[in-house]
Amino acid sequence: MGNVALALARVFLYGGGAVLSQLKITDTTLRDGHQSLWATRMTTADMLPIIEKIDSVGYHSLEVWGGATFDVCMRFLDEDPWERLRTLKKYARRTPLQMLLRAQSLVGYQLYPDDVVRAFIARAAANGIDIIRIFDALNDLRNMEVPVEAAKKEGVHVQGTVVYTISPVHTTEHYLKTALELESMGVDSICIKDMAGLLAPFEAYKLVKLFKEKLHVPVQLHSHYIGGLAVGAYLEAARAGVDVVDTASVPLAFGASQPPVETVVRALEGTPYDTGLDLNLLFEIARYFDDLRRELGYERGVTRITDMWVFQHQVPGGMISNLVSQLKEQKAADRINEVLAEIPRVRADLGYPPLVTPTSQIVGTQAVLNVLLGERYKMVPGEVKNYVRGLYGRPPAPISEEIRRLIIGDEEPIQGRPADILEPRLEEARREIGDLARNEDDVVAYAMFPQIARKFFEKRQQGQLRPGRQSLPSRGQDKAEAGGTAKMDLKD
Amino acid sequence: MGNVALALARVFLYGGGAVLSQLKITDTTLRDGHQSLWATRMTTADMLPIIEKIDSVGYHSLEVWGGATFDVCMRFLDEDPWERLRTLKKYARRTPLQMLLRAQSLVGYQLYPDDVVRAFIARAAANGIDIIRIFDALNDLRNMEVPVEAAKKEGVHVQGTVVYTISPVHTTEHYLKTALELESMGVDSICIKDMAGLLAPFEAYKLVKLFKEKLHVPVQLHSHYIGGLAVGAYLEAARAGVDVVDTASVPLAFGASQPPVETVVRALEGTPYDTGLDLNLLFEIARYFDDLRRELGYERGVTRITDMWVFQHQVPGGMISNLVSQLKEQKAADRINEVLAEIPRVRADLGYPPLVTPTSQIVGTQAVLNVLLGERYKMVPGEVKNYVRGLYGRPPAPISEEIRRLIIGDEEPIQGRPADILEPRLEEARREIGDLARNEDDVVAYAMFPQIARKFFEKRQQGQLRPGRQSLPSRGQDKAEAGGTAKMDLKD
Ligand SMILES: [Co+2]
Ligand SMILES: [Co+2]
Repeated sequence: MGNVALALARVFLYGGGAVLSQLKITDTTLRDGHQSLWATRMTTADMLPIIEKIDSVGYHSLEVWGGATFDVCMRFLDEDPWERLRTLKKYARRTPLQMLLRAQSLVGYQLYPDDVVRAFIARAAANGIDIIRIFDALNDLRNMEVPVEAAKKEGVHVQGTVVYTISPVHTTEHYLKTALELESMGVDSICIKDMAGLLAPFEAYKLVKLFKEKLHVPVQLHSHYIGGLAVGAYLEAARAGVDVVDTASVPLAFGASQPPVETVVRALEGTPYDTGLDLNLLFEIARYFDDLRRELGYERGVTRITDMWVFQHQVPGGMISNLVSQLKEQKAADRINEVLAEIPRVRADLGYPPLVTPTSQIVGTQAVLNVLLGERYKMVPGEVKNYVRGLYGRPPAPISEEIRRLIIGDEEPIQGRPADILEPRLEEARREIGDLARNEDDVVAYAMFPQIARKFFEKRQQGQLRPGRQSLPSRGQDKAEAGGTAKMDLKD
Repeated sequence: MGNVALALARVFLYGGGAVLSQLKITDTTLRDGHQSLWATRMTTADMLPIIEKIDSVGYHSLEVWGGATFDVCMRFLDEDPWERLRTLKKYARRTPLQMLLRAQSLVGYQLYPDDVVRAFIARAAANGIDIIRIFDALNDLRNMEVPVEAAKKEGVHVQGTVVYTISPVHTTEHYLKTALELESMGVDSICIKDMAGLLAPFEAYKLVKLFKEKLHVPVQLHSHYIGGLAVGAYLEAARAGVDVVDTASVPLAFGASQPPVETVVRALEGTPYDTGLDLNLLFEIARYFDDLRRELGYERGVTRITDMWVFQHQVPGGMISNLVSQLKEQKAADRINEVLAEIPRVRADLGYPPLVTPTSQIVGTQAVLNVLLGERYKMVPGEVKNYVRGLYGRPPAPISEEIRRLIIGDEEPIQGRPADILEPRLEEARREIGDLARNEDDVVAYAMFPQIARKFFEKRQQGQLRPGRQSLPSRGQDKAEAGGTAKMDLKD
């Protein structure tokens, strides 16, 4: 894009002119908010009564799709995720709709072949997505190449993501290098993604300041509240010139979710970063979600001591509670402290992956096994082997030969782009699912989630779908139905 | 105090030398934390197992006494508040002990005569208080003269307080003038007291920056979390050079209480404001209080929508829930929005008092009456009349003649220092209570709280005191036993 077109695009998406210094807000209530606090269980029916009011707030964008919402729609809510997107698009006419894409893993938990990636992104855009935020857990840009290219081809706003964590190799230089490479890949903006609430406020200032100096595209900050740093991080980022931050309506904010929009709006009123959003309108929206929260039986987001522990060992609170459940099943709940101590060691062994879907599961499961079996790497699950084989991408730091041998013996890790070794899958999927698929959206859903999608299509064909308001899911439902530990920590 | 002595005092109390830029922390867990979240019900027995560990953290001071703790000890906990202080002092040998004093109202809800004020402060110092924070709800320095003078005479560190609120008359100039006058009265430090969580972060920066430029004494910031501004306010205050901030251990933080110490410590690690406190030690302490919290049945501090409303009408969430209870008793809970709309009008009529004990009760009660009776100031409670008579001090803005006439008719408000019209009370109290008082502490307690103290002394004499761990108080217990609305919002 030329400089003039770029400037125009910015004026369109970021206000431009006299309001350039205003801070813009992305509302995550309908995606990350309920994924973080309500096990992703908000239904389209829950969203419809309030979506037009949300659309009228003047948000920069609404994150309403992607992440865990896609499979949860089919798996637990009897909903077609594509249909949700079209419905939301119908009522939210003013504000761009945004989704979260796990790079080559799309909205799933494994890498998909390029043909599925391209098809999925094309359908997302066709069904109403305006902005696609693309992240790779390892900041391995090779996993983002095809998604970025495909999204650009669809003409949506492509946001490249730098995943933030704390480790010896996650230096300011690493983040800047990643961001600059994303920019040269043609992304329209950069997101700093702090999924564990680790970004200290004055670090946020430094990082955003540097990005604003070195990058030409707008910078957005996505933090989770967890231990309480995020509001401070947003304010310091605002001082450093961040363009957009992510917040949620207060009943779906705090705790594992984003900071509340109301606090950020009030904190910046009358400053050069004034968001211009109407608190009264935000309170009306919050009232709706608070009534819904009580009706469905969910707690407010809170900060527990276990959430604070993230400051010491970088293990997000949600991951801790899942580790505790896992240990309880093995009648070993009392060994949680050993597991928490083992996690940083496994993480170091594996080259310091950030703890986000799916690497949080990979590290957590191995740490549990190391502790319970009394010998490190005595048993190694397939995902960990695949990780060491390089099938998820390049670890942030090299894995030592010793650890590699322990895990995959004499095997050589792959050196190339992981998706290069994946066979195309779309046409095969199309043949497999046959008439159960009514359209291309169905085929793509099936290509990503064969079992879940087939079950959903069959139910649909038999007229057995019962979409609509859900009650509180029983603990463990996700895990039981999803097959063990694979989805033990949906954090993104 | 000369400049050298002042500098030495600062080195003593604030670290001095190379660590001058470090942020110091006052721990409020044992006073404001449980006053804000546990109805002031933490007992000395609850504190003793952890007090030495708290003492070892390296806090600037421990706020453990004053505010509502004094009368609650005798009223609900079967405890002698003086004995609590002596006990804490015995085990906390390293960290200065701090108390909150409501200026001429001491630890009560009305102004006391000077002889009681002097006697109380002398006994507080003798029993172990090192730092006395003195505030007047109206920032009327005439109510602080005798307390400041008495405290200085006792040789304790005297902290003068500027109460922060939002109103047309609460300008930066008002705060600076108040602070400068306090400094010239000889206070050893200044506290900015944000009891309603209204201080926006960049406002905090401006105010602290100005104070640090214009004042010679250290500046401390006391905020309540409420709608979530406080962590940001502390960080901006740190940037502006604030010397000390107030926090609580995470199980007694958030919501109506202070920000969590763990977040502030983590946020500043590695910055010029690094607190130097040990997170692991803080986590051990938090674990103790979290176990206690579960055992006693208290919720964590949270931010509700009603708490967010403070951003619109400055009514603290705690006050709202009390207003709702009051309305429910009148079967008029549905009129809360009218009351919330009336409060800013009453507040304006009464010259914009900050909403803190006791002015929050004065304004709230009048607003309820105005709404329920369908006519403004048709009924006016004694406290409101006394307020307009000037018996609580000088309202921040003058009250219009019209409102004055509505409330006290032709009566002229007093012009002088309110306590000047109060008769000495100590010797009379001594005679009244006679042998039920075992010592001077008892006489002072009786002079302030005649009914409560007498009941307590009688129980003690009959061997009927049952101090020790309390269970969750039933809602309304405070109000019922304390006689109506007088203590409906213990916010300080
Ligand atoms: Co997220
Ligand atoms: Co307070």
